[in-house]
Amino acid sequence: MTVNKVDERLWKNKREEAYNRFLEDIEIGYVDADIKELIELVFTKKNIFTTSSCSGRIVIVDALYPWLREETSIVFKKHSPVTLEDVLSILNQKTLYKLWLIVSGPIIHFNALNLDTAIKLLTIVRNAGFKHSGIISISNGGIVIEVVSGIWVPFLLKDGEKVIIKDLELIVNLANKMLYEGKARLEKLFKFLRDADI
Amino acid sequence: MTVNKVDERLWKNKREEAYNRFLEDIEIGYVDADIKELIELVFTKKNIFTTSSCSGRIVIVDALYPWLREETSIVFKKHSPVTLEDVLSILNQKTLYKLWLIVSGPIIHFNALNLDTAIKLLTIVRNAGFKHSGIISISNGGIVIEVVSGIWVPFLLKDGEKVIIKDLELIVNLANKMLYEGKARLEKLFKFLRDADI
Repeated sequence: MTVNKVDERLWKNKREEAYNRFLEDIEIGYVDADIKELIELVFTKKNIFTTSSCSGRIVIVDALYPWLREETSIVFKKHSPVTLEDVLSILNQKTLYKLWLIVSGPIIHFNALNLDTAIKLLTIVRNAGFKHSGIISISNGGIVIEVVSGIWVPFLLKDGEKVIIKDLELIVNLANKMLYEGKARLEKLFKFLRDADI
Repeated sequence: MTVNKVDERLWKNKREEAYNRFLEDIEIGYVDADIKELIELVFTKKNIFTTSSCSGRIVIVDALYPWLREETSIVFKKHSPVTLEDVLSILNQKTLYKLWLIVSGPIIHFNALNLDTAIKLLTIVRNAGFKHSGIISISNGGIVIEVVSGIWVPFLLKDGEKVIIKDLELIVNLANKMLYEGKARLEKLFKFLRDADI
């Protein structure tokens, strides 16, 4: 296989598709409010667009390991701070494997028109605190950059029916603080992108 | 800035430097035993070499958040399973912020001679279970690919002087199992790389 240049026409089509999907998602109320403005900003740029994004969230999953995706059942999901009551209502349900409360920072997938832009974007996002970002694919449809912070923390709440945590309120407060840390980085990224010629 | 091709001569020099460093590290006993064979294998390949690597480890850090690097003090580190006694001896010491036991899967930095190789490598490592891998830099010195699995789990043990965990033995056993999961992926990666023309 040989790497060809990105096909600009194909890329522009994909960009337009992504933009239309974004508008539709706004209309049906599907767009994560905390990230809407950033995506709008990105669509004013020449050489990048976004495909999927999440502003950060707190989920509770019933799984053997917190990193599993397919075998995992998500029993709770929220893109804003959680309350002790939210978590208690889940905690009192039957657990099959292990119950993990997972805080994730923002995740954004960008598509860049060329390698220069991709490299420039990597520098910008790293400066904004998204240290774990990288190019995950290169094709004639564009260069896909996954932008992630290091904010991803699972808390083991229950092992089967056994509750592991001594102070649930402390965990809830800490998880909310971590969620906020992620959202704050998103604001920093917004400023960095706004000022970038990209 | 315009992306130029990788300078093959510069790349070969870097490769030789990395190989000499690896040999020195073996001599002083600095090389992580669980990853030595894999690095040796990589140095038999034409278009890739490794710069830094870790086979997976368990650390205990005293930090506000587990993802912090600079502000963190590592109070314990081991590349093999830990015992309850290991952890208890740390738990009984004074904690400044929060005490986190962190299990990390393998991390390897590869340097590829060209984009074709980098893309090929990304496919190989993803198939071997290293789903969070990406190209983190591109320069005339080579294309750097960070290869990581999703295995990274912090356990909050103490908040200040307050112990959070009800059953430490359960956490120790689980952390060791997770460490093993990471090492198993390394073996899978070894097989995939051995059979790859790269």
